[in-house]
Amino acid sequence: MGDHKKRSKLGEGEMEVAKFFHMNGGTGVASYAKNSLLQQKVILMTKGINDEAITALYRNLSPETICVADLGCSSGPNSFLPVSQLIKTINEECKNNCQQSPEFHIFLNDLPGNDFNTIFRLLPAFHEDLNKQNMGQDGLDPPKCFVTGVAGSFYSRLFPSKSLHFVHSSYSLHWLSQVPDGIENNKENIYAATTSPPSAHKAYYEQYERDFVTFLKYRSEELVKGGRIVLTLMGKENEDRFSKGCRYLVEPLSMALKELVAEGSVEEEKVNSFNIPGYCPSPEEVMYVVEKEGSFTINCLETSELHLDASGESMAQCMRAVAEPLLVSHFGDGNGLMDDVFHKYREIYVNCMTKEDAMVTSVIVSLTKIN
Amino acid sequence: MGDHKKRSKLGEGEMEVAKFFHMNGGTGVASYAKNSLLQQKVILMTKGINDEAITALYRNLSPETICVADLGCSSGPNSFLPVSQLIKTINEECKNNCQQSPEFHIFLNDLPGNDFNTIFRLLPAFHEDLNKQNMGQDGLDPPKCFVTGVAGSFYSRLFPSKSLHFVHSSYSLHWLSQVPDGIENNKENIYAATTSPPSAHKAYYEQYERDFVTFLKYRSEELVKGGRIVLTLMGKENEDRFSKGCRYLVEPLSMALKELVAEGSVEEEKVNSFNIPGYCPSPEEVMYVVEKEGSFTINCLETSELHLDASGESMAQCMRAVAEPLLVSHFGDGNGLMDDVFHKYREIYVNCMTKEDAMVTSVIVSLTKIN
Repeated sequence: MGDHKKRSKLGEGEMEVAKFFHMNGGTGVASYAKNSLLQQKVILMTKGINDEAITALYRNLSPETICVADLGCSSGPNSFLPVSQLIKTINEECKNNCQQSPEFHIFLNDLPGNDFNTIFRLLPAFHEDLNKQNMGQDGLDPPKCFVTGVAGSFYSRLFPSKSLHFVHSSYSLHWLSQVPDGIENNKENIYAATTSPPSAHKAYYEQYERDFVTFLKYRSEELVKGGRIVLTLMGKENEDRFSKGCRYLVEPLSMALKELVAEGSVEEEKVNSFNIPGYCPSPEEVMYVVEKEGSFTINCLETSELHLDASGESMAQCMRAVAEPLLVSHFGDGNGLMDDVFHKYREIYVNCMTKEDAMVTSVIVSLTKIN
Repeated sequence: MGDHKKRSKLGEGEMEVAKFFHMNGGTGVASYAKNSLLQQKVILMTKGINDEAITALYRNLSPETICVADLGCSSGPNSFLPVSQLIKTINEECKNNCQQSPEFHIFLNDLPGNDFNTIFRLLPAFHEDLNKQNMGQDGLDPPKCFVTGVAGSFYSRLFPSKSLHFVHSSYSLHWLSQVPDGIENNKENIYAATTSPPSAHKAYYEQYERDFVTFLKYRSEELVKGGRIVLTLMGKENEDRFSKGCRYLVEPLSMALKELVAEGSVEEEKVNSFNIPGYCPSPEEVMYVVEKEGSFTINCLETSELHLDASGESMAQCMRAVAEPLLVSHFGDGNGLMDDVFHKYREIYVNCMTKEDAMVTSVIVSLTKIN
């Protein structure tokens, strides 16, 4: 990423997403742990696809220890939800066959700025819950599960060669490794929006393509043959630039920043130079990159729409938990700026978004490693 | 541990060491990260024994990925020191044979209250240093190293069966899983001191024996056949209760608390009921438990004496970084009590300990898993 620094619109300290990007830590009112209901819904929605993948993996490979990585786990109850579901599914499968469950080695990954301490303090409750939900039957023990934390960008190698069986990632992979270069003309917008110039759309797409190829290449080194990946991304129905994608979530933030410029609280140039390092691909764009990279076959590829919570308050809190560190790294937080931004976000969401049927599109893809 | 609760001298919340015990977090003036020079010296002192063990392991088993656990890693520069040394040693061995270094999967473990966030924020510097120190030769790449954090007590299972090659632990295993039961009569002391009643010595020893058997049993499940363990504990020369062991470190704390009772700042009953959950075994006591447990052969067993820093300030800071959370959980920290305790500690150390040749004894043992 370093060699692109000069061409970027963002200042030096802001260039490397891996260094500053994280969800709000802790368990307070503005924390991700307390404001991640949308992400929880997404995880619950993809349970069927995850179950299918982990069951097929277990039937084919029958490892004594199943090694599972959750990439972009964040910190809070959601960090444990996908792995709890996977373990329960395998334990049921084993019970039905009167077999002892395999052991699970769980690797919860996020960027180094993530609040891993909060994850680790939730571990005792996770284990208690696991044992309650997975009581052995006819003298079988509940499954042994060993959880570790892994700090690093999933756009780099995170695990030894051929050490993983299953990779899961939910609502993380739409984040790019950096704001794309060459989008100086995207002044009116903070992402690849309907009114962004075509060259900005192209730059965002190309950054996504590079990053997703990198992601798949590294995962293919880390997974065993026959290993599985299930990814859920914020996406869009199709490549049409008018496709709504994540606009109901991001547009209020864009509008809030513009209002603060109009009021004189934020410099126009500061907003002009702010762009979110994220891209919402279409299913076709996902399929194209998977086939181009070549290490995986696609088992299934779907989109799904989630209606957004009508409460402006909860949407503002949800967005704040996700975007606050990103915004603070660019704008600072002088004079309670973040309070102002998300107060406006809430108002705009209530006044504009709730009139339409606000929704967010997810792209879900399930892959198997070929060799 | 739960079933012993009623018999313990400590209150309920203080019973389970695993729940509250940790070194001082962060990187501030009272942090473990900034006050762990003694522990660093101990790690450097045992480099030879560690090198011998990891080299023998690599020559015998030649795994493609060497899985290493450091138990009780704490948080700070010391967290990375033992694994850096191990990796460098294997990389040199490989260079000499013109082989590519294996990959390393590193598991840094400590209790859930440990500050893992600080560890993870030191990761980029660790990797940079690793690459600098282990440059490949003749086109060989520097070794790939993947670090994870593991929160939990080493008196429980922490890893899947047969998943580890090497276990290292330095200055951690003298901590017990709990304050022993049946030491109500150890009122004048806060550990198994020279003037403690024989029954208190016996209770401390028995707790140590139970805990160390548990430790070895779980590690034998987690290690592959031929796997290695190197442990360094604070210990004593022999079983003689007048053996000095850790008295130069702990006695000033005991005396400081008694002075605070005399001044009326702390209740006498509160000090009477305070005991440290730690035991310093002799080499014979280590050998006895290893042979009793039966999963390991002893490759070497030594003691070593370290002369303590003459500066009362640095010793007080070192002790504070280690013992503050333990003390706060029992005494609270009203009216800056901890400042008072360690101010007195410093004075006592300077006035009493520096007149003698203050030292601390370490016991170092290197083990190989038999089957």
